[in-house]
Amino acid sequence: MEGNAMPSGNTQVRLASRPMGKPTPENFEITQTSLPEPSEGQLLLKILYLSLDPYMRGRMNATKSYAKPVEIGDVMEGGTVARVVRSRHPDFAEGDVVLSHSGWQSYALSDGAGLRKLDPQAAPLSTALGILGMPGFTAYSGLLTIGRPKPGETVVVAAASGAVGSAVGQIARIKGARAVGIAGGAEKCAFVRDELGFDAVIDHRVPDFAAQLVAACPGGIDVYFENVGGHVWDAVFPLLNDFARVPVCGLIAQYNSRPGEPTGADRLPLVMRDVLSKSLNIRGFIQREFADQRPDFYRAMAGWISSGEVRYREDIVDGLENAPAAFIGLLEGRNFGKLVIRVAAEN
Amino acid sequence: MEGNAMPSGNTQVRLASRPMGKPTPENFEITQTSLPEPSEGQLLLKILYLSLDPYMRGRMNATKSYAKPVEIGDVMEGGTVARVVRSRHPDFAEGDVVLSHSGWQSYALSDGAGLRKLDPQAAPLSTALGILGMPGFTAYSGLLTIGRPKPGETVVVAAASGAVGSAVGQIARIKGARAVGIAGGAEKCAFVRDELGFDAVIDHRVPDFAAQLVAACPGGIDVYFENVGGHVWDAVFPLLNDFARVPVCGLIAQYNSRPGEPTGADRLPLVMRDVLSKSLNIRGFIQREFADQRPDFYRAMAGWISSGEVRYREDIVDGLENAPAAFIGLLEGRNFGKLVIRVAAEN
Repeated sequence: MEGNAMPSGNTQVRLASRPMGKPTPENFEITQTSLPEPSEGQLLLKILYLSLDPYMRGRMNATKSYAKPVEIGDVMEGGTVARVVRSRHPDFAEGDVVLSHSGWQSYALSDGAGLRKLDPQAAPLSTALGILGMPGFTAYSGLLTIGRPKPGETVVVAAASGAVGSAVGQIARIKGARAVGIAGGAEKCAFVRDELGFDAVIDHRVPDFAAQLVAACPGGIDVYFENVGGHVWDAVFPLLNDFARVPVCGLIAQYNSRPGEPTGADRLPLVMRDVLSKSLNIRGFIQREFADQRPDFYRAMAGWISSGEVRYREDIVDGLENAPAAFIGLLEGRNFGKLVIRVAAEN
Repeated sequence: MEGNAMPSGNTQVRLASRPMGKPTPENFEITQTSLPEPSEGQLLLKILYLSLDPYMRGRMNATKSYAKPVEIGDVMEGGTVARVVRSRHPDFAEGDVVLSHSGWQSYALSDGAGLRKLDPQAAPLSTALGILGMPGFTAYSGLLTIGRPKPGETVVVAAASGAVGSAVGQIARIKGARAVGIAGGAEKCAFVRDELGFDAVIDHRVPDFAAQLVAACPGGIDVYFENVGGHVWDAVFPLLNDFARVPVCGLIAQYNSRPGEPTGADRLPLVMRDVLSKSLNIRGFIQREFADQRPDFYRAMAGWISSGEVRYREDIVDGLENAPAAFIGLLEGRNFGKLVIRVAAEN
């Protein structure tokens, strides 16, 4: 059920089983429950948009990461844009639109904690999950706080047509650096070069990918914004300059690896040798570590979007029931732009 | 020839061949040349002490590191304390004692560039190569700038009886952190615990080393000052806390590894996974990056030594001809304290 009609139930996507390697549709279960009733001090939220992001793959594992795993049978978690449809909370009125973390479901209760009101006039609502949300802020905070690109330096980022990578390269250029993007396939590469204005872009699927990267980085690499891992890392690593910075916000290429899988030679000694001999800085981060920069981010990014200095692309998929397949595709790079599920129409 | 007598020649230790794996005596050649004559603006230095440090192993390889390699046939490089025995330079008088980078030889010419005059009354001259020199400053700058230990945090350092490690643990304690040292053998461990005052010390040669490290770090590890690599890394890495800092100043355990040696499973994906999930910061450095901190270091360290808050141990070997064997032993942990060659008597 969609639109304005008040439905009788809540559709939810739950974790049915933990994936071994790549997730499959069987790892998810779609259930219907009755609509929850807000108590005093609570709100009922109707989810309009659900963000799908690579980090969610980690939550499907049992191992503790920076956040606790989703338990079997629990609703999958995720960032959402929602409308208040019933309010028993003094700070929110029916009709308000908020950023919430309500997960993969069509309705949710909230006590108001952690909600941020959105202005539907200021920007398309879905951007609060992308360029003006967590992915955009991941790019902004990681690049500027850890990467610290200087004018004339070379910044490399993979998944360059995606939510984080597209912002990384464009912010790098605003700061006077060269942006070299890596993307999968000719269509995405053309978008990164022609629409986003990166200085160079390379298709990581071509056989001479590593050689093309060398050619695109004649002065080496000063900042590698790591969000994929895998064979992109192997091509990038030898090109890092002395004092290069490597903010690490994702490793999508290894999220689906299976425990006990055979591996190649041990790369760690070589990596540590270069960490030492080149004074490299490898630094993992989660954007919420830099939460105090969020007001600056909202102001700066809104300005860059309105001036046209930052462009973005969204890949909007209709219907919560399509979230599992869309998420499986995201991990394989089948999305093109920030992947968002339209759970319900805005009006 | 030693002492005050002006000898007829200069003894030099040259790189005869590049080692494959561990250096052997055959990689070094001891030669005699005539004593050089200073031109106008030059000095003749008589070397009193030569510092032997693990980084010199890297210079014996052909591969470019943060410094260029020593060429075959060249005098091995190294930090030295020397007396000016002839001066044709306005800023230096005969009898002055200076810190220089004159290498493995008994005499050297200098144009004065990069020399630092030493006060023989202020501290034993050999300390300018150790606790009050490059190793002490490596500990100070890396620990305080990258490691940034907070009161109550746990700092782990290996080679804890050595030039750098001993300073790291003692500075950590001065800053209110717990210092856990790792050393090789009961004698070194007793020194680290009883003389240097570390909170705990573990012998990395015992079979249950990793389990002992777990027991010594009940709250995990917040700073791992990496100067050895190898199996110590494997024991330390799983214990790193969220937001742990890993300054990397040396990897002595892998300096002697041979290209093409068989390796175990690839550890890099696991390391990168934890870099991401724990927001780790791994940062290679060379102390000269922080050269502007040197005045603060000299002042602070001199104070800590005179107050007894920092203690140090030197392992002084007589005679330049013994430098190759002493250096080979250093790479195997056979020294006990900062290794220095006494090239000539001070008086």
